[in-house]
Amino acid sequence: MLPDSISSFIKGHLDSFVTELAQFLSIPSVSTLSEHEKDILSAAEWVLDQVKRCGFTGRIYPTERHPIVLGRSPEVPGAPTLLIYGHYDVQPPDPLDEWQTPPFSPEVRDGYIYARGASDDKGQLFTYIKAIEAVLRTGQKLPLNLIILAEGEEEITSPNLEKFLMDHRDELRANAVAISDSAQFAHGIPAITYGLRGISYLQVDIRGPRVDLHSGGFGGIIYNPAQVLVDILQKLKNPDGKVALPGFYDDVLALQGWEREEMASLPVDIQALKDYLGVSELTGEPGYSMVERRTARPTLDINGLWSGFSGEGSKTIIPAKAGAKVSMRLVPNQVPEKIDQLFHQFVTANCPQGVSATVTSFNRADPVLVPRNTPAMRAAEKAIETGFGKKPVFIREGGSIPVVNMIKKHLGQENILLLGWGSPDDGAHSTNERFCIEDFHRGIRSAAALFYEMAG
Amino acid sequence: MLPDSISSFIKGHLDSFVTELAQFLSIPSVSTLSEHEKDILSAAEWVLDQVKRCGFTGRIYPTERHPIVLGRSPEVPGAPTLLIYGHYDVQPPDPLDEWQTPPFSPEVRDGYIYARGASDDKGQLFTYIKAIEAVLRTGQKLPLNLIILAEGEEEITSPNLEKFLMDHRDELRANAVAISDSAQFAHGIPAITYGLRGISYLQVDIRGPRVDLHSGGFGGIIYNPAQVLVDILQKLKNPDGKVALPGFYDDVLALQGWEREEMASLPVDIQALKDYLGVSELTGEPGYSMVERRTARPTLDINGLWSGFSGEGSKTIIPAKAGAKVSMRLVPNQVPEKIDQLFHQFVTANCPQGVSATVTSFNRADPVLVPRNTPAMRAAEKAIETGFGKKPVFIREGGSIPVVNMIKKHLGQENILLLGWGSPDDGAHSTNERFCIEDFHRGIRSAAALFYEMAG
Repeated sequence: MLPDSISSFIKGHLDSFVTELAQFLSIPSVSTLSEHEKDILSAAEWVLDQVKRCGFTGRIYPTERHPIVLGRSPEVPGAPTLLIYGHYDVQPPDPLDEWQTPPFSPEVRDGYIYARGASDDKGQLFTYIKAIEAVLRTGQKLPLNLIILAEGEEEITSPNLEKFLMDHRDELRANAVAISDSAQFAHGIPAITYGLRGISYLQVDIRGPRVDLHSGGFGGIIYNPAQVLVDILQKLKNPDGKVALPGFYDDVLALQGWEREEMASLPVDIQALKDYLGVSELTGEPGYSMVERRTARPTLDINGLWSGFSGEGSKTIIPAKAGAKVSMRLVPNQVPEKIDQLFHQFVTANCPQGVSATVTSFNRADPVLVPRNTPAMRAAEKAIETGFGKKPVFIREGGSIPVVNMIKKHLGQENILLLGWGSPDDGAHSTNERFCIEDFHRGIRSAAALFYEMAG
Repeated sequence: MLPDSISSFIKGHLDSFVTELAQFLSIPSVSTLSEHEKDILSAAEWVLDQVKRCGFTGRIYPTERHPIVLGRSPEVPGAPTLLIYGHYDVQPPDPLDEWQTPPFSPEVRDGYIYARGASDDKGQLFTYIKAIEAVLRTGQKLPLNLIILAEGEEEITSPNLEKFLMDHRDELRANAVAISDSAQFAHGIPAITYGLRGISYLQVDIRGPRVDLHSGGFGGIIYNPAQVLVDILQKLKNPDGKVALPGFYDDVLALQGWEREEMASLPVDIQALKDYLGVSELTGEPGYSMVERRTARPTLDINGLWSGFSGEGSKTIIPAKAGAKVSMRLVPNQVPEKIDQLFHQFVTANCPQGVSATVTSFNRADPVLVPRNTPAMRAAEKAIETGFGKKPVFIREGGSIPVVNMIKKHLGQENILLLGWGSPDDGAHSTNERFCIEDFHRGIRSAAALFYEMAG
């Protein structure tokens, strides 16, 4: 449901909306680099200004690093409340010389706006603000209560968001949360993401002799830490892709028949995927489809390896130490803490005497499944159908979105709507990031429609 | 056999010999660093000057990098000829802050002279020159023909020596070659080395996707190059230390009973070795002793490993590539070229489709056994007994000495006497390198005795 007047207003003002978005995108709000602290603050102020122009109350909350913008619409008594989350910080743009046009000088070409943050997440966050404006400037009142929460630390794993959510729990009470920081299933196939994989990220360090040794002098009588590491890592995963860590699958919630059917019906182009990845063969856990392996089955990957000499030519040493980063993508109902423990026990049990192993845990995130049969989800489904002219597909994502876990945990919120307006080939975190202007348009329409659907 | 007059002369002049050695050691002739080119030349000139003072003819031969010094004694018709090989270049001294006294400011303390090159190889080479001087200054003539060959590139794998040997094959004709660039079996247990392991040194590179991928987005559907590498490396060696590369042991010459008995009789202090290495357990191929595993059995070691992210914290990627350096220490009658081929075939056969593997060969050296029952070996044995007051033990070394292979190949010389005056704890290639002054003394005595034993 979207009043015609609003629909027309959005269409008529799309060019000026793009111009405004370009302003937003020209602020180099790179959260990881301290030289951009002023830009981060400018971007926060820019968002607050936009929110206030919609008649919202709002302010900037400082944190230990980058501020959080919080805005609230004038109260509509008895109406539901929607919390909108987004982030105004961006990834660093390197390598700069791979950009066709500078990352913070937005340029429109071939129906796309090119700039760092175009899709992730400034462009997507901005759709909600422009949807609000469209409602108000066509002479209507907002049909529901809106809270806008925009952080500046998403690209650096939101170190201060958790505390903010705990401290502002009451103010952030809502019927549902909308987050547009993901993507459509494929360009032109809008999607609602209802599942995310969790993660356990660990580091293994093996130590042997006190210093690197001459491999001629001592080769054959001593455990080589690199070999010990390799032997342990090899035992963690079968060549066919099945994770071999004992107990790993114990808590995995089996996929239901209806869900497997739904996944099987998703339009997948395997050859296009292979071309994109630059590989001639895919692989994975036997008995599951590519979509299942990628989003709904747990897996294990070595993320990094190091030991001894890696320079040019030869150096004949037995390295004193070796290390690896290993992460496991988890699915419901796996528990990261338990997986960490299994991993720890396995490494210890497989490290021979005379060599020492240390396991460090870096990152944990719970897998998430949000309820699909809720009024909020139905509202989102209809809103997208209105906005995109096409029913969305329901998908799971292979990665984690830490904010989702935080919202679940600290706000007790299960109604989380992950509505991706962007496209998987927008180049988020890569060079020449872009956002399709027609997707921007559809996103604004869908956001506005969501207000009306939620209000009922 | 060593005339008393010579023995007394050496003893009486030991202090001044040490002073001269200190001069030699104060020249920072680091062959790998181009800023030391002048120092390399100074060291070559210093050696030539010493040789000429012995009445030798001699000159410095330029090569493409560092020069070779060649000196020849006045001819003694009918007497045998001994070629003495040594090197005047040294390893870099880093890390400098770990030296108690500066590496090129030699200092005598507690019966040792401390400096880079003290033992490897300036100090050991110098024993021959001082032995010649002792013969001449006690009024005698040399009882045999001597050729001194000193190179300046040993620490950078002697890239120009091979050509020099080929070009000067006739001038270098001799009955035996003496090389003092190894060590005693343990301090106070002089040794003749009659066997060296060979080497095959290779690099494996695995390539998967065209770029590093997000492990959330793609984990579970693609071969991870780091995992492929680990799976291959694990298959190369059993946890018990046996090399698992098919065909690896095919050409290995079995140890004879007498040799195993001889090795078993060597005085070995396992606890001291563990303490030195900083490990609580040794390991190795089942069925063989530590000495056998270390010097007379082939082995395989990972020398380096790299892939993906090795920085602090976490980065959730599937690496685009992974690599390893692997070297195999070989024994008679293994053939490096054949081992390389087996390795190459094995890696290729074990690399799954959709991932590519490249194998590069960096280094090859044949294993060596020099004949033990020769007049030259008997002469060396007696000379050491005279010089050290103790019969030498016969040992094999675990490493390779490339010049030995070159001499064998290009001079057709089998009588190679590897006579180590230094000690395994002299710190060659390490910091605080030293040479025991009493070993220096015994070395000069042994060298002089060798001249007389060879002359018969």
